Amino acid sequence: MKKLNVGVVGAAGLAAGKLIQLLLSHEGVQIVLLADIKELEGRSIQSFHPILRGMLPQKISSYDPVKIKKMCDVVFFATPHGFSMRHVGELLNGRLKVIDLSGDLRLKDPRVFAQWYGMVHENTRALHEAVYGLPEFHAQAIKKARLISNPGCYPTSIILGAAPLLKKGLALPRIIAHSVSGVSGAGRSSPQDFQLVDMDENIRPYRVGTHQHTPEMEQELSCLAKKTVTVLFVPHVGGYRCGIISTLYLAPRAKLLSTEEIIDVYRKTYSGKPFVRIFEAGKLPQLNDVVGTNFCDIGVVSDKRTRTYIVTSVIDNLIKGAGGQAVQNMNIACGFSETEGLL
Amino acid sequence: MKKLNVGVVGAAGLAAGKLIQLLLSHEGVQIVLLADIKELEGRSIQSFHPILRGMLPQKISSYDPVKIKKMCDVVFFATPHGFSMRHVGELLNGRLKVIDLSGDLRLKDPRVFAQWYGMVHENTRALHEAVYGLPEFHAQAIKKARLISNPGCYPTSIILGAAPLLKKGLALPRIIAHSVSGVSGAGRSSPQDFQLVDMDENIRPYRVGTHQHTPEMEQELSCLAKKTVTVLFVPHVGGYRCGIISTLYLAPRAKLLSTEEIIDVYRKTYSGKPFVRIFEAGKLPQLNDVVGTNFCDIGVVSDKRTRTYIVTSVIDNLIKGAGGQAVQNMNIACGFSETEGLL
Amino acid sequence: MKKLNVGVVGAAGLAAGKLIQLLLSHEGVQIVLLADIKELEGRSIQSFHPILRGMLPQKISSYDPVKIKKMCDVVFFATPHGFSMRHVGELLNGRLKVIDLSGDLRLKDPRVFAQWYGMVHENTRALHEAVYGLPEFHAQAIKKARLISNPGCYPTSIILGAAPLLKKGLALPRIIAHSVSGVSGAGRSSPQDFQLVDMDENIRPYRVGTHQHTPEMEQELSCLAKKTVTVLFVPHVGGYRCGIISTLYLAPRAKLLSTEEIIDVYRKTYSGKPFVRIFEAGKLPQLNDVVGTNFCDIGVVSDKRTRTYIVTSVIDNLIKGAGGQAVQNMNIACGFSETEGLL
Amino acid sequence: MKKLNVGVVGAAGLAAGKLIQLLLSHEGVQIVLLADIKELEGRSIQSFHPILRGMLPQKISSYDPVKIKKMCDVVFFATPHGFSMRHVGELLNGRLKVIDLSGDLRLKDPRVFAQWYGMVHENTRALHEAVYGLPEFHAQAIKKARLISNPGCYPTSIILGAAPLLKKGLALPRIIAHSVSGVSGAGRSSPQDFQLVDMDENIRPYRVGTHQHTPEMEQELSCLAKKTVTVLFVPHVGGYRCGIISTLYLAPRAKLLSTEEIIDVYRKTYSGKPFVRIFEAGKLPQLNDVVGTNFCDIGVVSDKRTRTYIVTSVIDNLIKGAGGQAVQNMNIACGFSETEGLL
Repeated sequence: MKKLNVGVVGAAGLAAGKLIQLLLSHEGVQIVLLADIKELEGRSIQSFHPILRGMLPQKISSYDPVKIKKMCDVVFFATPHGFSMRHVGELLNGRLKVIDLSGDLRLKDPRVFAQWYGMVHENTRALHEAVYGLPEFHAQAIKKARLISNPGCYPTSIILGAAPLLKKGLALPRIIAHSVSGVSGAGRSSPQDFQLVDMDENIRPYRVGTHQHTPEMEQELSCLAKKTVTVLFVPHVGGYRCGIISTLYLAPRAKLLSTEEIIDVYRKTYSGKPFVRIFEAGKLPQLNDVVGTNFCDIGVVSDKRTRTYIVTSVIDNLIKGAGGQAVQNMNIACGFSETEGLL
Repeated sequence: MKKLNVGVVGAAGLAAGKLIQLLLSHEGVQIVLLADIKELEGRSIQSFHPILRGMLPQKISSYDPVKIKKMCDVVFFATPHGFSMRHVGELLNGRLKVIDLSGDLRLKDPRVFAQWYGMVHENTRALHEAVYGLPEFHAQAIKKARLISNPGCYPTSIILGAAPLLKKGLALPRIIAHSVSGVSGAGRSSPQDFQLVDMDENIRPYRVGTHQHTPEMEQELSCLAKKTVTVLFVPHVGGYRCGIISTLYLAPRAKLLSTEEIIDVYRKTYSGKPFVRIFEAGKLPQLNDVVGTNFCDIGVVSDKRTRTYIVTSVIDNLIKGAGGQAVQNMNIACGFSETEGLL
Repeated sequence: MKKLNVGVVGAAGLAAGKLIQLLLSHEGVQIVLLADIKELEGRSIQSFHPILRGMLPQKISSYDPVKIKKMCDVVFFATPHGFSMRHVGELLNGRLKVIDLSGDLRLKDPRVFAQWYGMVHENTRALHEAVYGLPEFHAQAIKKARLISNPGCYPTSIILGAAPLLKKGLALPRIIAHSVSGVSGAGRSSPQDFQLVDMDENIRPYRVGTHQHTPEMEQELSCLAKKTVTVLFVPHVGGYRCGIISTLYLAPRAKLLSTEEIIDVYRKTYSGKPFVRIFEAGKLPQLNDVVGTNFCDIGVVSDKRTRTYIVTSVIDNLIKGAGGQAVQNMNIACGFSETEGLL
Repeated sequence: MKKLNVGVVGAAGLAAGKLIQLLLSHEGVQIVLLADIKELEGRSIQSFHPILRGMLPQKISSYDPVKIKKMCDVVFFATPHGFSMRHVGELLNGRLKVIDLSGDLRLKDPRVFAQWYGMVHENTRALHEAVYGLPEFHAQAIKKARLISNPGCYPTSIILGAAPLLKKGLALPRIIAHSVSGVSGAGRSSPQDFQLVDMDENIRPYRVGTHQHTPEMEQELSCLAKKTVTVLFVPHVGGYRCGIISTLYLAPRAKLLSTEEIIDVYRKTYSGKPFVRIFEAGKLPQLNDVVGTNFCDIGVVSDKRTRTYIVTSVIDNLIKGAGGQAVQNMNIACGFSETEGLL
């Protein structure tokens, strides 16, 4: 079978490193282009991702839309916020499929984007075309999409964790989402903030109530719940490399269901979804069950004393929260098996 | 000045190791007795706490109440639950002061004890005599006490974090308390559960809604709030050695105060308390600010969008959450400066 | 293409967990049997390897040679020392290929085995039949073997690191090999020794000069050098999960070659070997370049001041040092591409 | 007793943070001055060392020799290389004692300094006055010194580990010294090199054979051995915060002594030295035995097979390797008990 040609823009970044590793072990594609938007032309990929030493002959090139359209069947943007919205437009007139891992195309309302990202949106047309690439809920649209907006890492864990209760109207549309992420979630952009000497054995809250992933969760959960959902999102960074653990606190809308009943709702919601695993009553997932995989593991407790549902949802932020989900989206959009290269 | 003679029962345990280190650097005391309730007689202390190599000539002896009463001015129990309630009775007829780090004497109601600890209480008289050793709220009683029940590690961080809002009636008496603790919180009792190979880079929820520290927080916060307080306590263990970060979610009882107003309430509550540090608006504490110290650092956010107060409270679980607080209690009870040996 | 049927004996152990993961992502095989020698019959594999939740329907069965011969084309032994030497005999009369990850079949001389492993060898015939499965030097023999003895983790890093200098007679046949391994090297056998609370942020030497991998390195290096090689092997365990870094100190036999000249020797030795990467002068490999991969990365310094060659060799102890090398051996022995399932 | 007034120059740096903590718990001194050579005037100390929040009222001031001479009895320089050699001259005409933690005054020969530090020495007079502050060997000179050059972190562990064998002429004067240090050894100067995302679970060799601590060890060991000693020094940085483990390889000069005989030599050498602990035969120290303390723990193996002495020497690089040793030197120079503030 002829392999698809894929390219990666933003190849020097941390998320791109894991994405490239996943693409290398995917039988159906070959990497034909590695570009970056910083002036890194001619640098080898291994100088940014030493683990890739010797595995990719290509040098990093500068961003060139003509080259991308000529060489690639699929291109991934793993670029900082503000880049892809300015550039996807010029790529979307052919058979090329674009998968954007940045935050540029996730929020449908450009005013909300401006408010939370602190920059004006420059491509509302792309906003409307982009399909939100959460395969567990939007596989049909992804299948036909030429522009896919890959979800944020935190929203992936939190939307998958909260959706079953909200879709069925079993919980009030008001969530507390408490998350801890490994430092790789921050990429390489703030070296002075994430030195080992400061972050080792540490947990640090940040952007409490003001993180830009908040409106993304609210938009998607409101859409699934068919009513306005509010999320208090409280992120932390922990002194480890990879993994997000999100704990969700929800109140029942009416009668409190038992843990077993809630688990049954989750099992039905994710029946046939290969990357969501629901835990049996009495067990809760931990980070190490998913780090290195594309799984989202979910466990639930229904606490009678306080009438609260507690949901634990864990993912690897660089895989299901970024590059793995991007490959999953490519698989669906390009007709591969959904799990190709990911198990 | 003549030094006080102190003894430690349960000397081979993890909490005792840190307590002994703190006592060694305390100018006003000397360690005269190290006992354990397992059959460790004649073993050196360094075989359990290698960091103490060469610093203590004593061998571990078996538990002997007569010897304790004869040799000690103060004795610390760092024993598993179920031991001190059976033994403190025989020690309390002289000038000896007893500081119990176990959970035996924290819950005033023996029925609540039986329900959460799964064992019948055998000494309700000691229950009533014991002073709850949280110095920030009970210094006067500690000063006169001969039996002090040292608070649990999680309750220390959570009670100090929630008390100002509840005492003033500014929040509804219903808290979500989300905590992550280093593995040292579990002591050495379950080696198979806390191997590095499983816990490294991990975060794992456990005993969600059912942890035995829950009624302790509820009892003490209800007492301070002068009304029944309910706590949903959701503990986690993280892949690091020391430190607890507790995040509290509270709803305003009436008008939502600003972050600055709430900080002001906290500053007033802990004015003159040497081991509580309140952060200015816009800053939140992290684990590494307190690990290795007896401080409890607290930061607050008042979130307008969701009308929620978020409180972050961090301690070192082996110091302010155990041995350090025990020394702080000894300092108050024995007339030392409150900070002696702890700064 | 029809998939090969593979089985794993010792499936509950740590090395087996990684081996099973690798086999699951290998396109040419299917796992048909998971057995263990402890009484775990009927237990699910995910209770020992939570990361495998939902990926393998099989329950663990007890060891049954008849079943293995009937069901499997290839069987892996990831069992404690002393098991496979007693059992491989009964499996070797058909087309079945056996890959043994234990230390039972690595030492050709049963007296040396008895001396270093502390047990009498019970199957010297298997000893002589077994091919030492280091593909970089023994690919031809592996291709025809029905019994392959997978190298130890430390020897893999040290033999690959020292062989080029010794084969060419460029260094004296006397090596100091200083290694640090992650705790996964110890398996799950001694939980009390490798608790996170003790090993976190720690490095600990052990079995200095007496580790059972010493004679394995000496045997293989002597064979490659065609003269007796002595190794002072000084292992350490470090407070992290995976990876071995071995530093080798060798003295030149005659003239001291430059770093560049030595690198040239290494490049020629490993030309065409897909899993050995030789670093350019001025660069040395680090653990994180190889953890999660089947690579062995090697860097060299020729120090003029002290006339010493320093070689740094790093591997992932569970992959190139165990399960990955086992798959590499299977690939060669069964006619797959050497890198199948490993890149 | 009147407390001594102490100042710290370079107060914003990592080593200074630990030094300040130690000085705060020292009963005999009070910190009167915190200066830095970067433009940080008016910044609070807690913005660089959050753990010191609320413990020091002073703001950071700029470097002012007049103020230092007026205010301080003792001043510590924890400044980058190149600063103290230019400035100590102006401070040494009164009763002030200066303890320099930088590398400026450790090498007696300015040509050797120029060669290894890459800068011309500008104060050879200070070079000759400075006493090398390794208290275990130079206590008499330290007692009378007004200028003390605090040893490097690696040399502290390596000199203490090798000296007994070399002083007695029991080993050849040619050492291999293999060290792994926590990232705090690098200070805060290269944030891009020591991000957690790269260093987590990592070990990385660097400056093999060319580290500037090499001539310091050679100078001091040659002086103690009364013959020229050569050191091949191979440093590594490990993915943890604090601690150095140095492993030394030495060959016997004549007859190989047993482990017990060597231990006896070490015990005699360090008899009465409160911060060196020698391990009994069969035991070797690990990092966690000393991290957080001022101890240097040493264990020895005499390996008959290869006729080699292996010495393991561990310290906390920020305490015995920097601030703790500086306090130990101050204690000796100012007439305090050697262990004051350090146990």
